[in-house]
Amino acid sequence: MKNNTKVVLDTSIFVNPDSRFIFGNTPRKALEKFTETIKEKNNIECYIPPSVYHELIKFTKELPYHLDILIKKKPPASYQSSIPALLFYEFIEETRARVNKGLRVTEKYIRRGLKETDSRETAQNIIQSARQEYRIALREGILDSKEDFDLILLAKELQACLSTSDKGLIKWAQKLGISCLCAEELKELIKNSS
Amino acid sequence: MKNNTKVVLDTSIFVNPDSRFIFGNTPRKALEKFTETIKEKNNIECYIPPSVYHELIKFTKELPYHLDILIKKKPPASYQSSIPALLFYEFIEETRARVNKGLRVTEKYIRRGLKETDSRETAQNIIQSARQEYRIALREGILDSKEDFDLILLAKELQACLSTSDKGLIKWAQKLGISCLCAEELKELIKNSS
Repeated sequence: MKNNTKVVLDTSIFVNPDSRFIFGNTPRKALEKFTETIKEKNNIECYIPPSVYHELIKFTKELPYHLDILIKKKPPASYQSSIPALLFYEFIEETRARVNKGLRVTEKYIRRGLKETDSRETAQNIIQSARQEYRIALREGILDSKEDFDLILLAKELQACLSTSDKGLIKWAQKLGISCLCAEELKELIKNSS
Repeated sequence: MKNNTKVVLDTSIFVNPDSRFIFGNTPRKALEKFTETIKEKNNIECYIPPSVYHELIKFTKELPYHLDILIKKKPPASYQSSIPALLFYEFIEETRARVNKGLRVTEKYIRRGLKETDSRETAQNIIQSARQEYRIALREGILDSKEDFDLILLAKELQACLSTSDKGLIKWAQKLGISCLCAEELKELIKNSS
């Protein structure tokens, strides 16, 4: 008998416009469709950390109970787990580089502001662009929440795949040897399961 | 026979104006004086990670070899070490909070810039203040370099004390159960050793 495939699910699979269309047009429909497709499959076990589940149901509202139990809510054993020191080194270095980038964004927009007269509209535009660029510099492609780390730690603990379309998550999960599945690959996996 | 006391040394002890005066008036003199005082002590073993040693000699120039060997250059076994997952959680959360703070600094100084005319002097002043405030928001009291983490990892590996006056280092070292010594405590320790 083949072992069951374990999959840890990230919200992005159901929420991000780029990936949720694989299962449905809205987050709610994507989640419903997904649970319907795994209902008859005995080979796949799906997990979600409670912290990520709470994020998810903000977008989808809670599922009817008979569907909801198809995705097991399990937190990682974070008080018992450890990670390689090297991962922490890499994270510190990456954060440092990003902090420097963030400062360059700050300087750029202060200079731009100095060249403008202070109309409310101009201020709003400049600050909005600065925010966007700052967020990309400091957040995109990095682990930036405990929910992200819950997903990685749970996948590691269960020796499960991580299904996500978040580039930061994929990058850091792969450093720990975790297989990642995008929405399409997850759909294929389910289709070929019994 | 009592065990030797192991001490891992941070540059701050010799370089920061607030603490180096304990051993000498300039970084060079502080380091020389320190090595002179431990020369006759058999109970104290001093260590420094090579990465931190390279930082240090930028300030002090290399010591004469007979003094230099009193501080053992040892890197942490970073490829074999692990850290508790919880430490990484805390670091992610702290970084997240600081990134948000950094953005508020950015916004504040853009608004200030918008209210000024663009003279070179004003621009320079505003950008300098922004830099300073941004650095405090994102760097002060946090591990922000691999050198910092080398110190923590080496102290953990050797079950040594860490001698530093860096608040960020102290905070994160203590989370791993590492004893920290400020310059004064280090001087006392040496004085009372044989």
